Amino acid sequence: MMNNKVTLKNVADYVGVSTATVSYVLNGKQQSISDETKEAILNAVKELGYYPNMNAKELASNRSQLIGVVVPQTEGDNKSVFANSFYGEILGSIEREARQQGYQVVISCADLDDNYIRIAYERNLSGIIAIGVYQDEILSKLSETKIPVVLIDSYCKTQDFDNVRIDDEQGSYLATSYLIRKGHSRIGFLCGHIQENGVMQKRFQGYRKALEEAGINLNPQWIFERKVSFEDGRLAAAHVAKALPEMTGLVCTADIMAIGLMKGLHAYRVTVPEDLSLIGFDDLEIANYLEPGLTTVHQAIAEKGAKAFGSLLNEINGNRKQEDIVLPVSIIERESVKELTR
Amino acid sequence: MMNNKVTLKNVADYVGVSTATVSYVLNGKQQSISDETKEAILNAVKELGYYPNMNAKELASNRSQLIGVVVPQTEGDNKSVFANSFYGEILGSIEREARQQGYQVVISCADLDDNYIRIAYERNLSGIIAIGVYQDEILSKLSETKIPVVLIDSYCKTQDFDNVRIDDEQGSYLATSYLIRKGHSRIGFLCGHIQENGVMQKRFQGYRKALEEAGINLNPQWIFERKVSFEDGRLAAAHVAKALPEMTGLVCTADIMAIGLMKGLHAYRVTVPEDLSLIGFDDLEIANYLEPGLTTVHQAIAEKGAKAFGSLLNEINGNRKQEDIVLPVSIIERESVKELTR
Repeated sequence: MMNNKVTLKNVADYVGVSTATVSYVLNGKQQSISDETKEAILNAVKELGYYPNMNAKELASNRSQLIGVVVPQTEGDNKSVFANSFYGEILGSIEREARQQGYQVVISCADLDDNYIRIAYERNLSGIIAIGVYQDEILSKLSETKIPVVLIDSYCKTQDFDNVRIDDEQGSYLATSYLIRKGHSRIGFLCGHIQENGVMQKRFQGYRKALEEAGINLNPQWIFERKVSFEDGRLAAAHVAKALPEMTGLVCTADIMAIGLMKGLHAYRVTVPEDLSLIGFDDLEIANYLEPGLTTVHQAIAEKGAKAFGSLLNEINGNRKQEDIVLPVSIIERESVKELTR
Repeated sequence: MMNNKVTLKNVADYVGVSTATVSYVLNGKQQSISDETKEAILNAVKELGYYPNMNAKELASNRSQLIGVVVPQTEGDNKSVFANSFYGEILGSIEREARQQGYQVVISCADLDDNYIRIAYERNLSGIIAIGVYQDEILSKLSETKIPVVLIDSYCKTQDFDNVRIDDEQGSYLATSYLIRKGHSRIGFLCGHIQENGVMQKRFQGYRKALEEAGINLNPQWIFERKVSFEDGRLAAAHVAKALPEMTGLVCTADIMAIGLMKGLHAYRVTVPEDLSLIGFDDLEIANYLEPGLTTVHQAIAEKGAKAFGSLLNEINGNRKQEDIVLPVSIIERESVKELTR
């Protein structure tokens, strides 16, 4: 029996006690209420199908048990951001952790803006996990709401938020060094938009550092900067193909772009790894789906989501550790890089 | 100035009016309040940074503007359901539509169960979109909550919920007929678990019907029934490879399985389409990422999500149309099917 909402008053009337008495019993408060009455109330709750209204409880406890996850809209308005499964994988891991702790996840695939902050505040969100890079101004507004926030993949300098990320510079340093070790010296770089405090900037630094250490000059014509998407990777093929056969290796800062590039190169009859050695970044599930499998920089995507939630939960519970969590990276060898014989 | 929550009372005190007056003005109710006072209140709201608490508003309006989306946990506990981007793509389209209408999306990747219904009820969800097949018992409990519900991809017989799906039988009928038209007659079927009222049952019927109409006997040894996942597709390769070269074509009821199969077949040196013509189902983004591109049955995944939200919104607004929405399917030709010369 759960036809229209059974109220606390219904329960009280059914048992013949005051609503205060029902409330005391349900909230486990110490009051001089007989065991008989307690039992009658608990039976009535079960029989009538009474569910305490969480909104009323929230108002009292000031906690919504709702976590906001902000996924940046990277793909333009007409395409789902989940076309890049990186976001789906992170979201899945946050949701799983949150559910196990009795929280639920409200997603937003719009950018973090005034409107979102307003909604977060109105909804009384317990906390927010924001993925990606945002302007200082909006982060400062977010900070004013006093809602606990954890950032994923941001290099912003604020002390207000904890941050979970990987060592992005080290990631592409490893990728570039890997190609150098395999005999390549004419190595290009295909990346997303390089912006201040963004992961692409760090990854570019790692690429440059590895070249420098090996005494290799960077060729600016082999830096291909585009949006992080399959389609942009595919379209980059025209430019990448022109750099061949002089360029023999390419560090790509996102698997989704590398996969698009492989598809695009096919139209130019360029084969990976025969004509171009390619290394990706992220280790998306689908990097393994391809033939040849994509050699790539592994980042523990699911762990990123889980750590971000753990950090957020600490903050919600008033135990903020105030630390950046930096997850390790490593190379996953598959078949997209060929060893050059010198 | 938004440091700790500014209340209605703060605004009232600031202006020197009663909280009732502030409430009247903010809710646009007709009361004899001077324009001067109205302006003072609105200025104070802005100045103090007052946000009405949505939970309080909800309690009054009985609407949370929260939509629950239930994504079935198909991949086992240790893997994100978003490893199959079908769910990410649907979720993305629901979120986009919802956001444009002022709703937000709470996701749950656990199965629809008593616990979920309890949470939905407690949260006062405005509506629920449930993807996949569920037991009658749980659907009937869900119906008792009176929360508007729309199902995606269910063939359950209840009149209580609207349903958005594709013509699944027609989809694999088209796929099978396509292979037959390309000269194949020894055609297998790789599918997910076939269950009552599930999409796989319908897709199996379409396959059988196309064979029957063409006077082709179904070979039960070429029916491969597994879980819908990349890994299960990959593992199916051992069995599929054994059926070659007698079997020349395969209808696969999910792109994600077909992609796993292609990867798995590579280890057996079986090439698509040279050694096996393969047709998928779903037209996931990644079906186009592969080389060769996967010929498949297109379903408008984003439209599915959008239609489901539209249908739910009608019901929330008391305009339920009580209709099943069936979206069309079509064949997308890529390179995974070879024409056989007879």
